[in-house]
Formats: sequence, structure tokens, C-alpha cells
Amino acid sequence: MSRNELIRRLQAILPAEAVLHDNEDLRPYECDGLSAYKQLPYFVVLPHNEAQVIEILKLCHATRTPVVARGAGTGLSGGALPHVSGVLLSLARLNQIVSINPQARTACVQPGVRNLAISEVAKPYGLYYAPDPSSQIACSIGGNVAENSGGVHCLKYGLTVHNILKLRVLTIAGEVLEIGGEGLDSAGYDLLALMTGSEGLLGIVTEIVVKLIPLPQKAQLVMASFEDIRKAGQAVANIIGAGIIPAGMEMMDKITIHAVEEFLQVGYDLNAEAILLCESDGNIEEVSDEIERIEMIMQQSGATRVSTSQNDLERLRFWAGRKAAFPAAGRVSPDYYCMDGTIPRKHLAKVLQGIEMLSQQYGLRCMNVFHAGDGNLHPLILYDANTPGELEKTEEFGAKILEMCISVGGTITGEHGVGIEKMDQMCTQFGSAELAVFRAIKTAFDPLELLNPGKAIPTLHRCAEMGAMHVHQGADKFAHLPRF
Amino acid sequence: MSRNELIRRLQAILPAEAVLHDNEDLRPYECDGLSAYKQLPYFVVLPHNEAQVIEILKLCHATRTPVVARGAGTGLSGGALPHVSGVLLSLARLNQIVSINPQARTACVQPGVRNLAISEVAKPYGLYYAPDPSSQIACSIGGNVAENSGGVHCLKYGLTVHNILKLRVLTIAGEVLEIGGEGLDSAGYDLLALMTGSEGLLGIVTEIVVKLIPLPQKAQLVMASFEDIRKAGQAVANIIGAGIIPAGMEMMDKITIHAVEEFLQVGYDLNAEAILLCESDGNIEEVSDEIERIEMIMQQSGATRVSTSQNDLERLRFWAGRKAAFPAAGRVSPDYYCMDGTIPRKHLAKVLQGIEMLSQQYGLRCMNVFHAGDGNLHPLILYDANTPGELEKTEEFGAKILEMCISVGGTITGEHGVGIEKMDQMCTQFGSAELAVFRAIKTAFDPLELLNPGKAIPTLHRCAEMGAMHVHQGADKFAHLPRF
Repeated sequence: MSRNELIRRLQAILPAEAVLHDNEDLRPYECDGLSAYKQLPYFVVLPHNEAQVIEILKLCHATRTPVVARGAGTGLSGGALPHVSGVLLSLARLNQIVSINPQARTACVQPGVRNLAISEVAKPYGLYYAPDPSSQIACSIGGNVAENSGGVHCLKYGLTVHNILKLRVLTIAGEVLEIGGEGLDSAGYDLLALMTGSEGLLGIVTEIVVKLIPLPQKAQLVMASFEDIRKAGQAVANIIGAGIIPAGMEMMDKITIHAVEEFLQVGYDLNAEAILLCESDGNIEEVSDEIERIEMIMQQSGATRVSTSQNDLERLRFWAGRKAAFPAAGRVSPDYYCMDGTIPRKHLAKVLQGIEMLSQQYGLRCMNVFHAGDGNLHPLILYDANTPGELEKTEEFGAKILEMCISVGGTITGEHGVGIEKMDQMCTQFGSAELAVFRAIKTAFDPLELLNPGKAIPTLHRCAEMGAMHVHQGADKFAHLPRF
Repeated sequence: MSRNELIRRLQAILPAEAVLHDNEDLRPYECDGLSAYKQLPYFVVLPHNEAQVIEILKLCHATRTPVVARGAGTGLSGGALPHVSGVLLSLARLNQIVSINPQARTACVQPGVRNLAISEVAKPYGLYYAPDPSSQIACSIGGNVAENSGGVHCLKYGLTVHNILKLRVLTIAGEVLEIGGEGLDSAGYDLLALMTGSEGLLGIVTEIVVKLIPLPQKAQLVMASFEDIRKAGQAVANIIGAGIIPAGMEMMDKITIHAVEEFLQVGYDLNAEAILLCESDGNIEEVSDEIERIEMIMQQSGATRVSTSQNDLERLRFWAGRKAAFPAAGRVSPDYYCMDGTIPRKHLAKVLQGIEMLSQQYGLRCMNVFHAGDGNLHPLILYDANTPGELEKTEEFGAKILEMCISVGGTITGEHGVGIEKMDQMCTQFGSAELAVFRAIKTAFDPLELLNPGKAIPTLHRCAEMGAMHVHQGADKFAHLPRF
């Protein structure tokens, strides 16, 4: 079907202003938060309701047109990068809070609702939605489901998959699937978990029932300085080892501390090699008790300075630096590339040393700021895209970091997804048997490969061309567990 | 291939004693915990290691022989019911604790390891494995993974899927899949969740890495009597509403109280219409604080008697009656049929009244004993299999209960799985679009339908023959949520 004929058919479904096809209108959609990759879509469509989405999908299915879903476009792995001959399906206008049920502690929302907007409508009932990606002011809940987003507080409260109950999903053929339930378990295969984090490859989510939880009575933050990053890593292990699950536990290295302090003057310790931020939330007594224990463990772990927030203003000030790490990186470097690997906590010191060695080898600075409690690293590689070859060096450096994560038993993504960015690392992470199963599941939902083609799950052919990079095979995957 | 030729080929893989083919040897395997259904298998095989399982699967795949996996045979939905012309694959001899890693708080175990055995080996490290099905002395971790088992403590600690990190799985073709990871999230589709609870239809699990958690310093139990089951239901809602997540919260109705008291004389209140057992565990201060609040809420909710365990002996005595509810049912009735539906907590009183009405209508007594905190009901229908027609009446009564669960927004299984038992109710719970996706996933893993055929996922044809029973369609599924 010709491009013009497709436009005509889309305009029969949507008002004219909801079908974008001029290059200048398409430009804002050429990338998501991973701006290193850019591609103009064939069209952008902006439906207002589910019925329109169904018609769009039926048309795309009938005409074999690829469909790339997009939420707020804040994703960091290029999951919403457009397809050259595909429709970019923006779900931004499906932004209704359908219902809120304070007794059952649930809210039913459309995918375009902003993450933070859910907590805002829940606030009068003393409730909130727990997962809090850094982009929570802007990012949409639909995008959170697609990427299984986490955030500072996911150590205690879990990822998106742990905080949703039901999904309403459209297949590529425009059929409605209702999955999940309000009970702990559902009959049949766990489609809710399968759909969550599937990066737009299996279906289009049009309604989400999320869990709401009570706002904590109190939150308090301990900030501790360390003269050695290994000691900070050990402090993390000691806190978890003491049976404490902090609401959040974040680490920043020296280069990050200096970058954010220059930017915001929050009062971070410039002599520290590493700073830990450790938050406790809950009932007043619980928090007092937990904060006291955290302070003690920080001291025992060799902290050179320990401060505890005395009020919410101070707590938010301590957090402000951490939350501004990405813009701070933008101030000290023309460009930066944010990685997202997860490792077992015990390998923290080793992997940070490895990153430092790679940094010297590639001649590129790297800021380390991360969710220490769950071992989710976010190295920010600083580079200049205008220096020829520096982006390529950066990508190679980043790939090396992810392979190092895999080699210690970790994974190539903590919360940002695979998208277009980590396709090659999928070949390193998984063997051909696992990749074949991923492909078969994709085929079960989308046999024509129209949903977000070329993302998240590489073909076996692509991996074979890369060579035998898979570092784990057979029983070796469990080899780091000591034999009993 | 002839039966004899198959035996010969199996005996080439396994020692002679590990291939059972005489009727008397097969008899113990003719059913699992759901003894209403019985079927002799073609053979039983008892491999000792994964290499043997791989060879068995390759043979079955090549000869198109169905394979039904079996753990300890304690399942309650007939998931391990043999196939008339299939191999029953017992995993009981794959019972090694491969490794335990107290620092990472994980254990790597084979599927035949008993649930409780994991906690026993973890105990010297101050750790345990949380999910505790009633059958935990006998049931195997492999069976727990197959059914996504829960238990009294899953309200606070989650189901099996929330307590495992990695699986090693064999496909029907004998290929090894390694899925999951030690991080919060993994790249690719969530195969770990997909495999957990898939009832042996997608693959054979040969190794499981489970999470271990610290043994609580203290546990204490509040037992409260109510003169009205609705008040007990409201007390459950009030406790959860106060932000308390008890380690366990169980309810028993009058008929259950009398049955267990006659059996064990634990000191239950025989004047109560309902008894709630509510446990708190954690640090000493936390538990004291929580127990005080639970006592207060029970009083405010109209409890006629509130007792709190003063030591561990007393706590275990209070639990003993609840844990003996099934054998107690066996004492007051020749046979009983245990149902397993989950409903939103707010509908507890309504559904219990509905069960009471059905009980009168069918002239069959029904004991209600259940996980009140998560709305997981276990009605025990008392019947006599020797009275002609009574089993059929019981099954009809049971089906009505499950349909009532669905009609209030619940599901047909909390933790026992679908197995052979709830195939018809799957047609009620799901529409054709969801069932088609389930079938497509099955085909992705097992295109020849050799793994546990005829269980868990009905064919569309079967559902069509039952007629249009699906009670939820389209947006109605969310209709019980008040509009905002």
C-alpha cells in the first residue's frame, strides 16, 4: 500500500491533527531518551481512545505495517526508536485515570498517565504508587510497564511488575486480552509478568490496574562518607546482612560527588571517595529504630562522616544531589552515555575497579552513581560526540562494562531495558536455546513481527554473526555458588 | 514404537530398577493428592541425574511419547495424574542440595528436595526458605515451582515465584535453558515467572536457586473469636487497612473449629462462629508493637475473646488446630474435596454466605478454613464417595463456588493450580483471546504437546463445547472499581 493510501486510511480512523506525516512534525519523535540513535518514523498517530488504537492495529496488521509504541519518550535504551517504514503509535493521549479504589488500594489508569500523577491523585487517600524512576515527573506508566521500570525505592518496594495487578492489552490483530487479577496468583501462564518488560514486542497496553500503598508516616535519610569505595560497598553488604531493607540505598563516587556539588551545593563531603545515601521509611518507631542501626553500621564499616536528616527539607536536600546526577554530568561533559547493568552485591568493589581500569584504558571519564542496595549500576560515560570516534569508543567501553557484569553473574539491564542499545549484549547474556525460546514467544504473539521489530530480542542469525560470545554455558552459570 | 521396545530403550538409559512397568509397581503413581482422578501410567521412570532426564526427554520427543513430571505427588489439582500412554517422570531422586551460599542468601537445589529440607540446611546460618505449603514436610520444591505454591506465610513473604531466582529447565527436546538471575530484573521476556506455575506443560526443571531469608527473632500469634463471620471478615480488612502485613492471617468457621477441637483439643473457643489467627514476626520490638496493635484492632472489630501466645509452645499449639484442619475433616466425613479459589478480601462475607446457601441447596456440609489475609479460600466439601451420585454433586457444588469466585473478580486458583481439576473453570475464567494466547505459548515451548497433555490449559474446542460461560468480557472486568 502506498504511503498516501496509508495516510488516507489512518485519517479515516483519526482526526487529521492526530496523524502526523510532515517531516517537521515527525522530528520530535525521531528518538527517545537514548539520543545516540535517531530515525524518522513513516507516520506518528495520536489516538485518544482504545477503540481508535484497535482500528490502527487492525489496519497495520492487514497492511503489514510495523508498529512502534511510545509513551513519554523518556526511555534510555531506544525502545521507542521509530521504524523507518512503520507507524509510531503515541499513547500520550490515553491519559485518563479511569478509577481509584482506596479500599482495595488500586487505581485503574490508561498508559499515558504520568507515573507521578498516580501518586498525586492517590495522595488525598493517604496512598501512593511506589516505583519511582528518576524520570517520574515525565515518564508514563505505560512506558514503565513496557520496560519494567524500577527507581530509588525498588529495593524495598519492587519493580513495576511487583506493583501492578491487571493489564488490558491489545494484540497486533486488535484483539483484547485481559490478564492478571487482584489475587496473589492467577490461573494459566503468568502473562502479567511476561507482558511486563516486553518492550512493546508482544502487545499494546491500554489499561493498567496498579497497586497503591500507604504513604509512610515518616522517612529519614543517613548520609555517610567513605575514604575508600570498597568500604562503602562493604557497608552496603553489612546493612543488608543485618536484615535491614532500606527504602533506598544509593552510592555516588568522587567524580559524581564533585560534579553534583559544583552544580547544586547541597553540602556533600568533597573529601569522600564515595557517599552512601540510605533511607528508612515506615512508622515513626520503626524508622527511629532502623536509622539508629544504620548509623551504627555505617560507623562500624569505617564511615569518615555520618549525617542524618533532621527534617524532610534536609532529607530532600540530601537526595537532590543524587537525583541531579544526570544533569550534573551534562554540565561537566558535552555528552554522556548512561549504562544500566546489575551485579550481585558482593562483586561491587571488583566491578567498580574494573570500570576504573577501562576508564583509563579508553581515556574516558566515568561517573558512578547507582542503586547500591540491589547492585544496579548506572555508570555515566562522559564523552564528546563532536570528537571523531569518541562515540564509538564510548559504545565499546559501555559494552565492556556490560560483559563484565555478565561475567560476575549479573545481567545487562537493571531497569532500562534492552531496546536497540543492548541487542549485541543479549547474545553474550543468553545462549541459543534461550534465544530460540524468546523468538518462539515473540512468534506466539506476533507471528508477522510487526510490533517493535528489531528491538529487545536479537535473531539467532545476528548472534551467530557476532561469534560465540556467550560466556555462560551449562552448569558454569552456577559455578560461583560455593559447593555445599 | 511398541511398549516393549520403549521399555528396552528406557532401560538403555536407566538401571533396570529405575524403569517401572509392572501394574503393581505403577499403582502407587496412579494419582496425586487429588485421588478422585486415577490413571495408571504407561511406565514410571526414576532418573538419578539431569543427564538421564535429558536422554529420557530426547527419547520421548523422538517417539512422540507424552511426559508427565511428578515431584512428591502431594499436588491437589491432579497436575501429576499420569497419561495412559505416557511416561511418568518422577524427579524424586534428583534430591541433592547442590550448594548453599549464606552470604548471597541463596541455595541451589534439585527439584526432588523437600520444601522443609531447604530450611533445615539453611537453619545453621540463621536462614530459611519462606513459602510453606501445608504439605511442606513432604512436598518437593520442583512441585512447588510447577504449581507456584503458597502457604500460610505467603501473605507477607510471597508465593514461590517471589522466592526463587534462577531455574535450570529442560525443553521437551532435551535442551538446557538457564533462566532468571540474581538481580531484581533480567533481560528478555520474564521466563522465570512464565515457567513458575506452568504445571509441567512448558519444560522440566532440574535445578532451582531459591532465596533464603533471615529467621525472624520472634514470632507471636493473636487468636480472636467472633460471634459473626462478617465481623471476622471486617477485622481482617481493618488489620490490613491499618498498614499491618501479618506473617499469616487465617480464618476458621464454626464447623471447622468443632472438627479440629474434637480431634486435637487445642483449646479453641467452641462458642465462636469464626476464629482468626493472626501472626506477627520480625525483630522483638517490631513484633511487640505489631501484636499490641493487632489485639486492639481485634477488640475494636468486635472480637468476643482475644488470646495472645505467651511462648513458642503456645503459638504452635494455636497453629496446630489450623494445620490439622484437613485430617480433622477426614475424621468427620468419609471423604472431602478441597477447593482453592481467591477473591478480593472485601467480598469475603458475601462469598461465605453464598457457600452456605449452596451447602444447604446441595445438602452437603462445607468447612471453611482459609488464608483470610489474601482472600484465598479453601472450602472443604464433606461427602461420601460410597453414596451414589454424591461425588458428582460435590463436583458441581465445587464448580459453583469457583464460578462465584470469578463473578466477584477473583480467580479459580490461589495456590493449588488448575491441573485436571479446573479445566472447565478455565473456560469460565478466560475468554477465547486469552486462551488462544495460552495455547500459542504452549506451542512455542512444546509444539507436539508431549508435556503433560490435557492439563491446565483447555483447548478452545473444549471451551466452545461447554458453551459461552465466560462471565467477564471487555471493560466489565473492571466494572466493580468505582469510577473516579
